[in-house]
Amino acid sequence: MSLSKFISAKMSAIDRALDGFLPKASTKPATIHKAMRYSLFAGGKRLRPILALASAELCEGSATDAMPAACAVECIHTYSLIHDDLPCMDDDDLRRGRPTSHKVFGEGIAVLAGDALLTIAFEILAKSSGSKRHTPAMMVQELAAASGSRWLIAGQVMDIEGEGAAVSKSALRFIHQAKTAALLTCALRLGAMSANATPSKLQSITEFGQALGLAFQVIDDILDVTQTTEKLGKTAGKDVAATKATYPALFGLERARAVAHELTDKATAALKPFGKKGDIMREISNSLLVREY
Amino acid sequence: MSLSKFISAKMSAIDRALDGFLPKASTKPATIHKAMRYSLFAGGKRLRPILALASAELCEGSATDAMPAACAVECIHTYSLIHDDLPCMDDDDLRRGRPTSHKVFGEGIAVLAGDALLTIAFEILAKSSGSKRHTPAMMVQELAAASGSRWLIAGQVMDIEGEGAAVSKSALRFIHQAKTAALLTCALRLGAMSANATPSKLQSITEFGQALGLAFQVIDDILDVTQTTEKLGKTAGKDVAATKATYPALFGLERARAVAHELTDKATAALKPFGKKGDIMREISNSLLVREY
Repeated sequence: MSLSKFISAKMSAIDRALDGFLPKASTKPATIHKAMRYSLFAGGKRLRPILALASAELCEGSATDAMPAACAVECIHTYSLIHDDLPCMDDDDLRRGRPTSHKVFGEGIAVLAGDALLTIAFEILAKSSGSKRHTPAMMVQELAAASGSRWLIAGQVMDIEGEGAAVSKSALRFIHQAKTAALLTCALRLGAMSANATPSKLQSITEFGQALGLAFQVIDDILDVTQTTEKLGKTAGKDVAATKATYPALFGLERARAVAHELTDKATAALKPFGKKGDIMREISNSLLVREY
Repeated sequence: MSLSKFISAKMSAIDRALDGFLPKASTKPATIHKAMRYSLFAGGKRLRPILALASAELCEGSATDAMPAACAVECIHTYSLIHDDLPCMDDDDLRRGRPTSHKVFGEGIAVLAGDALLTIAFEILAKSSGSKRHTPAMMVQELAAASGSRWLIAGQVMDIEGEGAAVSKSALRFIHQAKTAALLTCALRLGAMSANATPSKLQSITEFGQALGLAFQVIDDILDVTQTTEKLGKTAGKDVAATKATYPALFGLERARAVAHELTDKATAALKPFGKKGDIMREISNSLLVREY
């Protein structure tokens, strides 16, 4: 199957599953359910859930069994975008080419929609059946750790506190690990766990995720500088305007591009134990490297 | 044991347990962990965790086994206060006699501290051992449902949307169920579940919680009108100023007081199957009825 066919098949399945997991838009109070759905069905790339499903298949499990984990991670990702876009954080009016949640529903409802997506993520995951090696409770712990104050939230805190400050290379690496690589790795791990992956496969997938997550964020930083707002669907040049610590700012564009390549190579090297079965993951990694938005 | 001794013993145990579950204030990034602890150790009454522990003991389980559930609920309660106090929601400067989180740490960190407490609640609960009848994953589902867009968050949405609007008696009842009774009942249920409660005991405890939760909120509405800001430790008269729907506003103070009595009687009646063992719960219910803050 070609990569684009694989991705569009998975995207449709993920959208159907998310639709089933979320309360209907008419469920009372309707405002909150409309707001949750507005951001969740906003044309996201579904990278994290696709990685979760691909990871399950890589470990010879089924995408169906991994769907709750995939959807839970997407709910967490979406909540984090809603809260990051708030006026008291990154203050962004545009996301995926549409007005951000607080522009449409007001700040109060946007905060609550984020809270509700964060909460439902754990409900969806706790309802999953897990696998022989991994109970749903173990998976909830993984997701909570990756999304909590030591990783995802830590990344946003350091992002805010790093604005305008001199940030070292190692500090920047840690910000990227926290705000991007941790949840992306978690998506891959949860997919593998739902497929009853062995510890050694789980370890390879973790190494793949950590390198891919860093590559993804370096590319994100590059695109912020090189692309237009129209192409990105979110305000371009925000990092520079906020004097945020980024790879291009610290090392220049050329070196940042080289780092993205190195990290992608490191990621695909971690797939070696999977042989030919890792082809789809390799293709996903390489496509992320040349993405334009 | 007297009620006051029971409560102070439980409060100390809860504080110690919360301290152990939370990352140290020095854990990086320190700002977020300081902010989480600032609100969590702000002199709260610990009503919900005390109810969880008392519920476990009522079902012949141990308070120790119920401690993760008790602490998880307190984290959820604290997150909801931080977010409710934000300028874009109830806009309150004072909570438990101290400046609110966003006044101390800024709005961005306050949003993230709430997010982090919400997230860690599920981590703590997922790490608990559950009981024969109730897995930790089942308990996570209960907590997520009670805190989610159909209950706790729904209550806050309806509270915001109800400001200045005419609200019917049944709508007000539903707001109270959502914003107060659901999480309070959940605390009791999780305590009982960790004690391996039978379905029939769980049912009695649920009925107790639903009535007690409504009584608690009616009394809260009364105190907002009758007490001073100093006594409450939060801004008094806020409901009237915001023209919020409350029992005193809808029915007058006298009728509101009668309703609080009726609901407390209904709650204690649900304890009948527990006989003498229910005494502490009865005392807690009656003490809430005459509380002054």
